[in-house]
Amino acid sequence: MQFNTINLIREHQPLVYCMTNLVVANYTANGLLALGASPLMSLNPAEAAEIPRFAQALLLNIGTLNGSDVEAMSLAGQSANQVGIPVVLDPVGVGATQCRRAAVQRLLAEVQFALIRGNAGEIATLAGIDWQAKGVDAGCGEADPVLAAKRVAERYRCVVALSGATDVISDGVQVAKITNGTPLLPRVTGSGCLLGAVCAAFAGVVEKTDYFQACVEACTLYAVAGELAAAGLLPTQTGSFCTALLDQLAAVSAQQVCQRAEVSYV
Amino acid sequence: MQFNTINLIREHQPLVYCMTNLVVANYTANGLLALGASPLMSLNPAEAAEIPRFAQALLLNIGTLNGSDVEAMSLAGQSANQVGIPVVLDPVGVGATQCRRAAVQRLLAEVQFALIRGNAGEIATLAGIDWQAKGVDAGCGEADPVLAAKRVAERYRCVVALSGATDVISDGVQVAKITNGTPLLPRVTGSGCLLGAVCAAFAGVVEKTDYFQACVEACTLYAVAGELAAAGLLPTQTGSFCTALLDQLAAVSAQQVCQRAEVSYV
Amino acid sequence: MQFNTINLIREHQPLVYCMTNLVVANYTANGLLALGASPLMSLNPAEAAEIPRFAQALLLNIGTLNGSDVEAMSLAGQSANQVGIPVVLDPVGVGATQCRRAAVQRLLAEVQFALIRGNAGEIATLAGIDWQAKGVDAGCGEADPVLAAKRVAERYRCVVALSGATDVISDGVQVAKITNGTPLLPRVTGSGCLLGAVCAAFAGVVEKTDYFQACVEACTLYAVAGELAAAGLLPTQTGSFCTALLDQLAAVSAQQVCQRAEVSYV
Repeated sequence: MQFNTINLIREHQPLVYCMTNLVVANYTANGLLALGASPLMSLNPAEAAEIPRFAQALLLNIGTLNGSDVEAMSLAGQSANQVGIPVVLDPVGVGATQCRRAAVQRLLAEVQFALIRGNAGEIATLAGIDWQAKGVDAGCGEADPVLAAKRVAERYRCVVALSGATDVISDGVQVAKITNGTPLLPRVTGSGCLLGAVCAAFAGVVEKTDYFQACVEACTLYAVAGELAAAGLLPTQTGSFCTALLDQLAAVSAQQVCQRAEVSYV
Repeated sequence: MQFNTINLIREHQPLVYCMTNLVVANYTANGLLALGASPLMSLNPAEAAEIPRFAQALLLNIGTLNGSDVEAMSLAGQSANQVGIPVVLDPVGVGATQCRRAAVQRLLAEVQFALIRGNAGEIATLAGIDWQAKGVDAGCGEADPVLAAKRVAERYRCVVALSGATDVISDGVQVAKITNGTPLLPRVTGSGCLLGAVCAAFAGVVEKTDYFQACVEACTLYAVAGELAAAGLLPTQTGSFCTALLDQLAAVSAQQVCQRAEVSYV
Repeated sequence: MQFNTINLIREHQPLVYCMTNLVVANYTANGLLALGASPLMSLNPAEAAEIPRFAQALLLNIGTLNGSDVEAMSLAGQSANQVGIPVVLDPVGVGATQCRRAAVQRLLAEVQFALIRGNAGEIATLAGIDWQAKGVDAGCGEADPVLAAKRVAERYRCVVALSGATDVISDGVQVAKITNGTPLLPRVTGSGCLLGAVCAAFAGVVEKTDYFQACVEACTLYAVAGELAAAGLLPTQTGSFCTALLDQLAAVSAQQVCQRAEVSYV
């Protein structure tokens, strides 16, 4: 397996239009810059239809919806669909409240997504599987993650990335499992949100037919960068890990990802 | 004195619902994750009454109010009162502008707080004592901090934590002074705001009758984590201290807090 | 040339009222605190006319406009003009969308700015020069940066700081070029936005007639702090650089800036 898509990102610096939550906006932008992409963060409905015309990918993250945010996301998503750039959905805490469920339902009805990225609880919720979510954290449940990811991928005709200790990626037919990573990742707020943006950057530099492969590469590279960042740190050094992860997103090479990748196909 | 409440946080990972300002949302979430709590950040009025039903504590921080924020905070606060979880108020810059005073008056009228945390200027303002605040910083004045903290605690029937070089904690009857800390703490934006969230996490794992003690433990642990983070740093390393404080919030043990605690009761 | 204005900032700790975008609010506040200034971040229109009365400088940054932000910025800007404190405009991505252009036109019509700080693409757009911007990044074009900066300075009767590998500062008559800096600066989100806030702090402690000189000092100190922060780091350590830049903004002395300054007058 090749992991060369990162080189395309560093060469072309895709502009990733991020409509994301206010908790992670800064870290997401720094993560994309480190990776080699060019972030544009905005939730303004007045420019939502315009930006996709010069962007290479769009991220819709519902972590802290307010005011006109869903309307703006729908406008941007539809514009992105028209011009053919990939749209990534991060349904943060979709199982937690009624208004998050309603927002995601609306976005799924009005926008065709290239990719949905979420934790086990969020993907289980979208799959209609019973799950005990805990706010915006993954929570716990009995759902088979492979089944959940496949079902959501089939239902919404897109790639699904279920993130966790083991990442599960599916397009409804193919399924990949990635076991790279570190327990420090979930201890950083927005580490999942940044992965959604990284997936958008990867999708932004490939053809539609390669979204599944690009998503596997994105999740593998991200988890490997996490491993490299965690090397030499104590499990309690969550602040130092925030910083080190940015350093490693900038430093990690296709060759390093290739050497460390623990990817299997089901 | 025992400092074991931190162990309850790490065991139960209380979900702390933070309605806080956009400057500190990321740092607050990372600080709570480091501590062992589970943050959920939202200012959306549409989910404000719903989240307290599955949260263990609520933080209302008025640092950057806008739009429907006060309305949402009031809804959340009343819902939290109904289900009996503690609500913490951080009246950021309450003395600085008319609209901050009005917002705090409304929240104090509509919500029963478990705890109010602020700097000397903010608590003096709530106590009706003359004070020269400087924007959102503490400013300077002649008020006796013990008198101010006691008066606000009596008036609003809650615990008050007045933060500064010496922290003063009072429930209107008891008064504790904490002299731990480091001059680097006020040089990090949101270090006071994060302490408010930490106090919420501590209150979230104890009984109502133990809020005073939990607040003393929270403020002591936070100041000790600050001391440990500052060890080996120059007074100018404010960026490094941001990172180190997160590391220490994750690493600091009940035993370490106990050994270093400088707490006296007035 | 003297670089002593930093000492005035550390002595007087000017309160800098920042109406800035949600991506960089935290980093801007931490950068101002490190420098020795006192940040107050707010976008609330209800306090926009009031804060300038006790602030020493105002920053208007249009990076993530939404809702009532432009209205609030106009109110604050007019209030600042009445009380005579300097107002800095950061026209983030002004060339990227219609609504950014409209917002900047309105602000330029309703507020007299002391200083406009932007990258080459933003200043070229304000100068009416053809330019290929890339979202909120500088992009590329053929415009002469000296010509662009002078033209904008003349048109809006203010100082202009065009930031890039070479910074160009002009008041329409005088032109300074600063070649200090590091390629790590543009890899940190909000490094330009923070520079705008730093310029506001410098303008806030001098007389109107010294805004040009204060701006040259601000940009030189910032670039020198960047150089010092980058020393010993790899070009990929963007996360570590974020932290180190804050440390250096707190540590850098007037003497260090003087020794390293690469400033020439055209």
